[in-house]
Amino acid sequence: MTILVNSSASRQQIRRILDVLHKNGWESFVVHEPTTRIVGVNPKHGVLQAPCLDGLPGVERVIHTSSQFPLASREASPENTVVDIDGVRVGGREFVVVAGPCAVESEEVLIETARAVKKLGARILRGGAFKPRSSPYAFQGLGKQGLKLLSKARDLTGLKICTELLDPGNLAMVCDHADIVQIGSRNMTNFALLKKIGKLKKPILLKRGMSAKVSEFLMAAEYLLAAGNPNVILCERGVVGFDQATRNILDLACVPIVKTLSHLPIIVDPSHATGYREYIAPLSRAALAVGADGLLVEVHPRPAHALCDGRQSINFAQFGEIMAQLSALAKPLGKTVNADGARTRAR
Amino acid sequence: MTILVNSSASRQQIRRILDVLHKNGWESFVVHEPTTRIVGVNPKHGVLQAPCLDGLPGVERVIHTSSQFPLASREASPENTVVDIDGVRVGGREFVVVAGPCAVESEEVLIETARAVKKLGARILRGGAFKPRSSPYAFQGLGKQGLKLLSKARDLTGLKICTELLDPGNLAMVCDHADIVQIGSRNMTNFALLKKIGKLKKPILLKRGMSAKVSEFLMAAEYLLAAGNPNVILCERGVVGFDQATRNILDLACVPIVKTLSHLPIIVDPSHATGYREYIAPLSRAALAVGADGLLVEVHPRPAHALCDGRQSINFAQFGEIMAQLSALAKPLGKTVNADGARTRAR
Amino acid sequence: MTILVNSSASRQQIRRILDVLHKNGWESFVVHEPTTRIVGVNPKHGVLQAPCLDGLPGVERVIHTSSQFPLASREASPENTVVDIDGVRVGGREFVVVAGPCAVESEEVLIETARAVKKLGARILRGGAFKPRSSPYAFQGLGKQGLKLLSKARDLTGLKICTELLDPGNLAMVCDHADIVQIGSRNMTNFALLKKIGKLKKPILLKRGMSAKVSEFLMAAEYLLAAGNPNVILCERGVVGFDQATRNILDLACVPIVKTLSHLPIIVDPSHATGYREYIAPLSRAALAVGADGLLVEVHPRPAHALCDGRQSINFAQFGEIMAQLSALAKPLGKTVNADGARTRAR
Amino acid sequence: MTILVNSSASRQQIRRILDVLHKNGWESFVVHEPTTRIVGVNPKHGVLQAPCLDGLPGVERVIHTSSQFPLASREASPENTVVDIDGVRVGGREFVVVAGPCAVESEEVLIETARAVKKLGARILRGGAFKPRSSPYAFQGLGKQGLKLLSKARDLTGLKICTELLDPGNLAMVCDHADIVQIGSRNMTNFALLKKIGKLKKPILLKRGMSAKVSEFLMAAEYLLAAGNPNVILCERGVVGFDQATRNILDLACVPIVKTLSHLPIIVDPSHATGYREYIAPLSRAALAVGADGLLVEVHPRPAHALCDGRQSINFAQFGEIMAQLSALAKPLGKTVNADGARTRAR
Repeated sequence: MTILVNSSASRQQIRRILDVLHKNGWESFVVHEPTTRIVGVNPKHGVLQAPCLDGLPGVERVIHTSSQFPLASREASPENTVVDIDGVRVGGREFVVVAGPCAVESEEVLIETARAVKKLGARILRGGAFKPRSSPYAFQGLGKQGLKLLSKARDLTGLKICTELLDPGNLAMVCDHADIVQIGSRNMTNFALLKKIGKLKKPILLKRGMSAKVSEFLMAAEYLLAAGNPNVILCERGVVGFDQATRNILDLACVPIVKTLSHLPIIVDPSHATGYREYIAPLSRAALAVGADGLLVEVHPRPAHALCDGRQSINFAQFGEIMAQLSALAKPLGKTVNADGARTRAR
Repeated sequence: MTILVNSSASRQQIRRILDVLHKNGWESFVVHEPTTRIVGVNPKHGVLQAPCLDGLPGVERVIHTSSQFPLASREASPENTVVDIDGVRVGGREFVVVAGPCAVESEEVLIETARAVKKLGARILRGGAFKPRSSPYAFQGLGKQGLKLLSKARDLTGLKICTELLDPGNLAMVCDHADIVQIGSRNMTNFALLKKIGKLKKPILLKRGMSAKVSEFLMAAEYLLAAGNPNVILCERGVVGFDQATRNILDLACVPIVKTLSHLPIIVDPSHATGYREYIAPLSRAALAVGADGLLVEVHPRPAHALCDGRQSINFAQFGEIMAQLSALAKPLGKTVNADGARTRAR
Repeated sequence: MTILVNSSASRQQIRRILDVLHKNGWESFVVHEPTTRIVGVNPKHGVLQAPCLDGLPGVERVIHTSSQFPLASREASPENTVVDIDGVRVGGREFVVVAGPCAVESEEVLIETARAVKKLGARILRGGAFKPRSSPYAFQGLGKQGLKLLSKARDLTGLKICTELLDPGNLAMVCDHADIVQIGSRNMTNFALLKKIGKLKKPILLKRGMSAKVSEFLMAAEYLLAAGNPNVILCERGVVGFDQATRNILDLACVPIVKTLSHLPIIVDPSHATGYREYIAPLSRAALAVGADGLLVEVHPRPAHALCDGRQSINFAQFGEIMAQLSALAKPLGKTVNADGARTRAR
Repeated sequence: MTILVNSSASRQQIRRILDVLHKNGWESFVVHEPTTRIVGVNPKHGVLQAPCLDGLPGVERVIHTSSQFPLASREASPENTVVDIDGVRVGGREFVVVAGPCAVESEEVLIETARAVKKLGARILRGGAFKPRSSPYAFQGLGKQGLKLLSKARDLTGLKICTELLDPGNLAMVCDHADIVQIGSRNMTNFALLKKIGKLKKPILLKRGMSAKVSEFLMAAEYLLAAGNPNVILCERGVVGFDQATRNILDLACVPIVKTLSHLPIIVDPSHATGYREYIAPLSRAALAVGADGLLVEVHPRPAHALCDGRQSINFAQFGEIMAQLSALAKPLGKTVNADGARTRAR
């Protein structure tokens, strides 16, 4: 049960609602963003009856739901959420493209890439300053210096910056430089991190865990919403499978399932899902066609020399080709891709 | 190693080629369709050197390959194979739609469905006369009567007929009625059946096993090609996964992988993959966008009353809507969908 | 619902029971072995009420069950089924060991292996005369000649013979030579084959499909029981997984699940499950400890020279070591292993 | 490459070794516990040659390995590591049993359980004070109060305490109360947390991620070893699978694989793996038989009333029965279980 609270409700009125819930055996969680809501959870799993709250002062509307993620659920909002990153709107008509190298390696590579993808229609620059690596001996990212280079790339190109947060100790530093904070697959169930970042309003890109069910994915998003951060963008990036022909299986059905069960925007990352650049273009087209709100793709000036994930990175020409294909496909789908505008402006 | 044999080669010349292979320790398999080829297999896995055959009379070309499926491999043919079913061409510019009920239930339902999907642009009618069911007590199909109804539907509508073969004992009967014989997921590794059907020229729709790697899928196709049947259409229909949000995971990356490794056409079945009709439309669009050669979709006049798989079947209106979306998408992809033609003709 | 029919019931009485079922909207399937039973299936999934049959002449007992595999279900028999292969009893106190080469390769290798494993305590000799291979160019087995060699090995050693059937066309030939007919993983959902072999009384070793749920596995067994063959032994042999450290994941929980849901015996095959001989001994011990009724293990005199699956085969010394470990473990588990007797007799 | 440094080596000597590595293009990581070692990593993946270090002052031994986890690898230590928790030794002859409720719920339940499992032979008490829950609205544990209750249980029973750490912010508090700090499956790839806890000497129980390959599992352990903490105990607890008959698939082959590739101890958790108490006893026996060093099992006085995971918890009588079975099995395996001693002492 979710109770939407009147914007003019007093503290006392809210306390009284919580009181009625408590007396009826329900637990309650108050969420203040974007508007004040109270999530009521029945700890006995449905044995208790829902208390009648409709007449109570301060109550605007009561949403009765059995969803495990009441705030993220479609019932909570028939309209799609649009996350606005200073004018770049994810979840609306535009199919938003996020591009960049796997890791920030050097100023030269980063700026070169940022300029190229900007020109070809990307809206957001991705690049890891802190990298989650399976081996402790693998390149772990440039850290703070990487964040500074990302800021510089933003200043030079106007692209928004998306970069990953691994350690809650770096929260402030990452938020200082990023426009969107990425929570990676390996940390989707790092609930301590989710609770911390959920307290801010900073837009978050939450990637699906490699073996997370869609319902678990949406419950991870619910951690962010329940902590008060409504600016959540989901990202499907492949799940574990039995065939080594690709690194993971890109589960594109996740997109219409999320659109059915939730109001949150969702983008698709075919680079990490497949691990092979040959398959990026067709799966990018499929991501657009299946209804995703955007694309996350690894681009590097010289993939063969990338410090990480070179095998799955595409070069500028390949990225340009994909952008052209997406532009052509977008129209019959009622979508837009920034490539058109970029091209026009470039003339 | 595959040796393409000259069309004018004599039996003696072929015998001599086999002889050279044998003397060098190689095993050989002769394939007569569509042209004569000899597959040479090194039983010691590469320890032996390939014998020099280039000068030999009767040898047109030698393809050196380490592929596990030399006849199905891309190296065997840079051009895509087009399977021609009496004028319906799968693997060419047209995105071919196969539609119909899961099982043939009654004359009324079948004919009603055939007429509707024909009008909306389907080219091929699907319907099971023999059904592979997990339970021995579930509806197993109408058998011979079902086949006759399919033939009748073809006579009335001009649609081609695709139906499943389970038992080699029914081979002749099924081939009498079907234009395309389906080998289902549950029989992808029924090699006795593959060898038998491979001896005919009848077009075959081979569905991917629920836990088959793409390489195993292509080796199953190789069974058919090696037995002499070049008319093989592959079908991606989902693989096992850990999330019950869909019945299986539709692995759309399979399409570009097959296109990279093989020259065979491949279509996509989102009905069995997801198990839910809500997700059929977006995944049908994705199948077209990812580069598949066609679609297999379950359509039923009244899905709620279907004898099997009702939950994943769509009705005529939903099918019409999908065909319209596919038509709109096809153009920028350089493809055609018959819906346009059907619509035009219907005027 | 399963109706146990009185052993003295007349045909007319059975017909009347079927009639009552039919009039109440139920479908019925008559099974004659080992005793006459009628399986009643409600095609409307529980909407209909179960007709009262208890007073009816010929009815011994009615088992109301919602199991998808009523004959295989634990409700059908509180006692464990013991499959008796001419004195070798699978499902009782003895932990029965089946051993032998993957494929029958030559008389010499087969007889040498048979004599060795017999001496070390194996009861049943396994060996493939027909091999299901992913590639059409891989060694497919010696066929009829292989079957004859297996018969010879039985004559010389007294071991029972277990070999695989792939093609229903070879049913009579395989049954002539085998004491137990194996239906392999790749054919667990080859329902045409299950129906055919189910009509005989020949003991069957049914291996779990690589992506079969336990319930699907038991429904495949139900095909055999419903066709009249009560002599079914199950075999867990690993399921698909995401980690290439082993070929498949051996799902040992399958054993207690089967013991809970069914009365059928179940053995374990760690050779195919793992693909590496290093792990055979510990997993064989685990199979005994988890409650399995026996073991299926690949043994070859010189694994490095085996025509197939050499990497996962163990040699005689390793097999002897495993048998000794099993013997030591069996006692506290209330089980016996033939190794003791074999050793005693050998003195 | 791992370089074992002489215990009497000077700082200067170490600096010189690092220098030689650096000049040859290698990266180096110095580890001080339990002895000083230098891990040399070739960033070009084998293109560079290993520098000759054998004559260098301070170098005791050089281990050339291509393992991705050089410190955790079997090559680093032919002898099994035994983690000593104040006299309870995990990795030696004793099969160590860890038991307790999923979550610390109340003083009464915790103390009652601690006393019962102690009496029946458990060595270590488990209980979550901080719980990682899929839903933000589920019971998240008693936190600090839970830790205090665990300490009290230790004082009363002498059991060692094992409890989970989720948030690096609670590191000091958890370490104050726990004898073993658990890193749960959901945090196996939370590398920031691994780096932090790796700096301490506190024994760690590292659970395998739900979709972690064994090699990834061992690389997560390498994070701890590389940070200087040698006291790592691994725990197999099931991986994702396609069959809902159990919550996860218990991958018992993981045990002999870890024993082959690594020197670290490994225990097995059948409670979380299966999710059903019926299967705990047989899989506990299998864990012992397969070669694990211990067991982690959920025990609750009244499982039906547990605040979490009640379905998979066993009661005291069931736990006692399992301990008796393990005792009987241990002897032929050359292992001991504390149940014997406990029983003897109880007389």
